[in-house]
Amino acid sequence: MDIKPLLSNNALSMRRSQIRDLLSVATRPEIISFAGGFPNPDTFPLEELKEIVQEVLEKDGNAALQYGSTDGVISLRQEISKLYKREENLDIPVDHIQITTASQQALDLISRIFINPGDVVVCGLPSYLGALQAFWSYQGQPYGLRHNNGLDEACNVLCATGKKPKFLYSIPDFQNPSGETMTLEEREYVVEVARKYDLLIVEDTPYKNIRFSGEKLPSMYSMAPERVMMLGTFSKTFVPGFRLGWIVAEPTILDRINVAKQSADLCTPAFSQLVAAKYLASGAYDENLKKTCALYKRKKDLMVKSFEEYMPEGVKWTNPEGGLFLFLKLPKKYDTRELFDIAIKENVAFVIGEAFHSDGSGKNTMRLNFSFATDEKIVEGVKRLANAIRQLYAKYGN
Amino acid sequence: MDIKPLLSNNALSMRRSQIRDLLSVATRPEIISFAGGFPNPDTFPLEELKEIVQEVLEKDGNAALQYGSTDGVISLRQEISKLYKREENLDIPVDHIQITTASQQALDLISRIFINPGDVVVCGLPSYLGALQAFWSYQGQPYGLRHNNGLDEACNVLCATGKKPKFLYSIPDFQNPSGETMTLEEREYVVEVARKYDLLIVEDTPYKNIRFSGEKLPSMYSMAPERVMMLGTFSKTFVPGFRLGWIVAEPTILDRINVAKQSADLCTPAFSQLVAAKYLASGAYDENLKKTCALYKRKKDLMVKSFEEYMPEGVKWTNPEGGLFLFLKLPKKYDTRELFDIAIKENVAFVIGEAFHSDGSGKNTMRLNFSFATDEKIVEGVKRLANAIRQLYAKYGN
Repeated sequence: MDIKPLLSNNALSMRRSQIRDLLSVATRPEIISFAGGFPNPDTFPLEELKEIVQEVLEKDGNAALQYGSTDGVISLRQEISKLYKREENLDIPVDHIQITTASQQALDLISRIFINPGDVVVCGLPSYLGALQAFWSYQGQPYGLRHNNGLDEACNVLCATGKKPKFLYSIPDFQNPSGETMTLEEREYVVEVARKYDLLIVEDTPYKNIRFSGEKLPSMYSMAPERVMMLGTFSKTFVPGFRLGWIVAEPTILDRINVAKQSADLCTPAFSQLVAAKYLASGAYDENLKKTCALYKRKKDLMVKSFEEYMPEGVKWTNPEGGLFLFLKLPKKYDTRELFDIAIKENVAFVIGEAFHSDGSGKNTMRLNFSFATDEKIVEGVKRLANAIRQLYAKYGN
Repeated sequence: MDIKPLLSNNALSMRRSQIRDLLSVATRPEIISFAGGFPNPDTFPLEELKEIVQEVLEKDGNAALQYGSTDGVISLRQEISKLYKREENLDIPVDHIQITTASQQALDLISRIFINPGDVVVCGLPSYLGALQAFWSYQGQPYGLRHNNGLDEACNVLCATGKKPKFLYSIPDFQNPSGETMTLEEREYVVEVARKYDLLIVEDTPYKNIRFSGEKLPSMYSMAPERVMMLGTFSKTFVPGFRLGWIVAEPTILDRINVAKQSADLCTPAFSQLVAAKYLASGAYDENLKKTCALYKRKKDLMVKSFEEYMPEGVKWTNPEGGLFLFLKLPKKYDTRELFDIAIKENVAFVIGEAFHSDGSGKNTMRLNFSFATDEKIVEGVKRLANAIRQLYAKYGN
């Protein structure tokens, strides 16, 4: 049966994740992959989890295995509230927290309740691919902004031409993929522009607490809680396998999100929420996070050092204050899509930067993950990539 | 900030689940609730799970806690394939199985890739509320059909008036909420009509294996695999808390579902999938299912017996061959919404039937769950409900 004529406009607007598809190429064991955004399994608190899952099944088994409430398990929301208190001195009541099936669902539900076909969402250029996918999936129109300081002008034009953005999407800390962190002044500026044009902000903070250096900066949520939806996740700081994220926002917004979540998946698994709540309450989360930051800093430093050692001339990279990614630029004339094919032959993988650019630009860029690979593979993988880049250069007589 | 002017048409089209909202009223401990669709916690294989979760963390910890593939863990898809072989003698290759975050997500993703605003979906009158919610959430237009034998005529009219249905939605076994089971002839007829008008069918089978009496009937999928998407779930036969469901369909359809799932939640938790796979492989699933069927049959019989004993004249009920629900009818002139308020004062809860009727009819009906309450509460709850119905009768001088 030919389903093409039956597909919805949403389906036709969706874009397959190049990351997910690249990952399927990159699973051959001989390939060193810098493509995914996988946390390092060494950071998974396996021993603690073995105890906690027993405890949850022992004491709370019936609740853990039953349907849960759509807004999420109360003990987990309380622990998240405490986390904001001790990490950022923010007072967030539990009714301002909605648990989601990881932050991808948060992006999906927010898109669902706000985006009509053709609606504009202002995001970065580049920006997180999963967010772009969510916008596209509802026929939203991401408008990518290369420099934050153009935001006022961009909003002015968009509003004047009947394309007032539905919201601004931003990852202020160690952006995926650019690695850039917004300064305090930039955050204040974005909030000010949002106020000026009466816009909502989606502040995505998956990496915020994986900081290697520099000082933690206040969230935009703390500056304008009435118009910011702040997304959090345990995927990078605990384990991604439980698919646990959350939205902090006004109850009027969460009420709509809740109705959308009812038809999306009814509720997030109670079992994993109870496990996460107990893990947070034990204090092990904070301890483990420190170790995670130290490990990722070391890996980031190693990758940067390997770049310095092996990369041919003309390759530029970021040196982020945190997160999981480095962003590389080749000289303008090269296309990393072409490089990818060479790199795969050299048994090393990355994500082409174009995937993160809503306007199709960024063809000379690429994203590399440093959190997952072993130290040996980081060095070896960078050597292979440098080699692949040299082949690309040679092809064009450089 | 007033978000109302910003909401998408999807958000405005969404309907809050009356079940979920009623459940929040019905959590007072003194209330006996027949409202939810909760399985009985006595059926949860707690002891086996304690062992299996340890085994998974021990042997597969890193994979269980990491991001998984969007299509689902292969070992679970293999176990589901084997399940179809031994339960229905169906040969289903793993690439015809997509894991979803329970079957609610399956309904959501199918709606997302097929429904444009205004598109018609033919369903039952009554039909499963979660499915209606998914259709509404994409501005679909459910057309409720009271009798299966009107399907050909209905499709004829719809097609002739430019409203060709995007798909037919059906729960052939112990329908939620009516408890009705489609005969073999009815199944063949629906498939025949689907062929005649070239329509897809969504066959939802959450209760199929919870059968008390009568013979298992072949699925519509087995009759027309090229046009049927068959939904399954472990929520009623294993545990709902892991949120594990699946879609069986042609790879061309699953490929689109996969892209939609990438932006919905990336992947379903690998941990719970690995646990479920091991549980199925152990053989304990089949054993436990037998006990579950026996328990639910006993509870169903007890509730029917209590109806016979306590219900005033004029109340009618179904006596289904399986599933989790009984469906009650009062004489036409009574509204179960009014009854609900009286019942809550009597400390007993149910779901008003109107919630399941896409056309707003069914005001004199209600759904009662018999799987969750203890035997004592089933008897006591029916007494209270009968008492509430007598009060409603008395109010109108009957």
